[in-house]
Amino acid sequence: MKRVKLVVGYDGTNYCGWQIQPNGITIEEVLNKKLSELLGEEIKVIGASRTDSGVHALGNVAVFDTNTQIPAEKISYALNQRLPEDITIQNSCEVPLEFHPRYCNSIKTYEYKILNRKFQIPLQRLYSHFVYIPLNISAMEEAARYIVGEHDFKSFCSSRTQVEDTIRTVYSLTISKSDETITIRITGNGFLYNMVRIIVGTLIKVGLGVYPAEHVKEIMEERDRKAAGPKVPGKGLTLVKIDYEDMK
Amino acid sequence: MKRVKLVVGYDGTNYCGWQIQPNGITIEEVLNKKLSELLGEEIKVIGASRTDSGVHALGNVAVFDTNTQIPAEKISYALNQRLPEDITIQNSCEVPLEFHPRYCNSIKTYEYKILNRKFQIPLQRLYSHFVYIPLNISAMEEAARYIVGEHDFKSFCSSRTQVEDTIRTVYSLTISKSDETITIRITGNGFLYNMVRIIVGTLIKVGLGVYPAEHVKEIMEERDRKAAGPKVPGKGLTLVKIDYEDMK
Repeated sequence: MKRVKLVVGYDGTNYCGWQIQPNGITIEEVLNKKLSELLGEEIKVIGASRTDSGVHALGNVAVFDTNTQIPAEKISYALNQRLPEDITIQNSCEVPLEFHPRYCNSIKTYEYKILNRKFQIPLQRLYSHFVYIPLNISAMEEAARYIVGEHDFKSFCSSRTQVEDTIRTVYSLTISKSDETITIRITGNGFLYNMVRIIVGTLIKVGLGVYPAEHVKEIMEERDRKAAGPKVPGKGLTLVKIDYEDMK
Repeated sequence: MKRVKLVVGYDGTNYCGWQIQPNGITIEEVLNKKLSELLGEEIKVIGASRTDSGVHALGNVAVFDTNTQIPAEKISYALNQRLPEDITIQNSCEVPLEFHPRYCNSIKTYEYKILNRKFQIPLQRLYSHFVYIPLNISAMEEAARYIVGEHDFKSFCSSRTQVEDTIRTVYSLTISKSDETITIRITGNGFLYNMVRIIVGTLIKVGLGVYPAEHVKEIMEERDRKAAGPKVPGKGLTLVKIDYEDMK
């Protein structure tokens, strides 16, 4: 038996997120079905990030165990022939049997895109959040400085979470603007439920002038979801990559 | 009565192109219906570019005549409330009654996007043409020099066309690469049916090494559609803008 790691890209528009659930089709479900068909055995993938409904990925990670004779590197090509066009395997390789995509230390990078102009651009509507009031980028950058570092992110976490330890480290948070698209790129050692989307919703409130930048420090200290800004829509969010510290 | 000019952006994925036809829904049809509802009179728009099925636009142009009291500048806002999210009016203004979007002199700019990497990126699949073999950009740039200028583009025009004068001027053709996306931007005083898509299909053959760059000159001289490369898919093509020479 061997363990195979997949790097998975997908357009989340037509999926109810990663994790199997009764209300609609999910990425995990499609991968299990197509891998089982391809390999002729029942396959169950373990995902690194259980992305929410509508959230996209360039490089989410999943592993599965198999007895197949097909070399791990070839599985990406064979599986892509069977997958729908909104899911594409970017890479497949063998990993040690003890490698677990959630329990091994990793660094995750997300991007959130905001289209900031007077009118929507239809070509960008599925992959960005539209804000028609001009945002003050330098105020947002100032606020971002309070997010970077090791903090208790309880205020920036869905109140539905059951996690007890809400301390995480954000390694970097950059805000760039190209034409009229603002890209917020955030890297960290782990993210709480809805954390990126609540951080972005809070930064937008700063960019609109509703909060002064330094108010983000107070929000952090409150340790209360109600103190932070709203959760922005999933469609603007893309899981860019997951780097595992103990793997090359 | 006044004539109103609209700048129209759309995602062409779910439309059978601009022009009304029996086989499916078109952009022209949606605009006529929604404008008629909004203004309470029967409206028929005249489009500048009758884009093909699947082709997108950031700024196609249409005009229509109306007796409405609504100021022309406000029509964009009111119409956007009624339009589906894959069509957005970018601007509306009053123009002279003699202004015609096809007969007035104009400069059109198109962009064609090619995703050139080993595997498809699902987020780009609707708006680019996927080519997995690496393309030689400098050879394509060399070939592009034979396209720029005033030429008889009969070889680069669908053989179904009924146009007799196939001489057009291409003002510029640039090829840029950002990450793994190649953008071919072409500007000219008019384009024959499928001309941009056949030019791009020909440049890809040069980029693959099937044609040497200078062969494009011979293709031009043949004045025969069969001499040129294939027509690439509509989904990679976006009509960026139309500038009218006689208007500010």
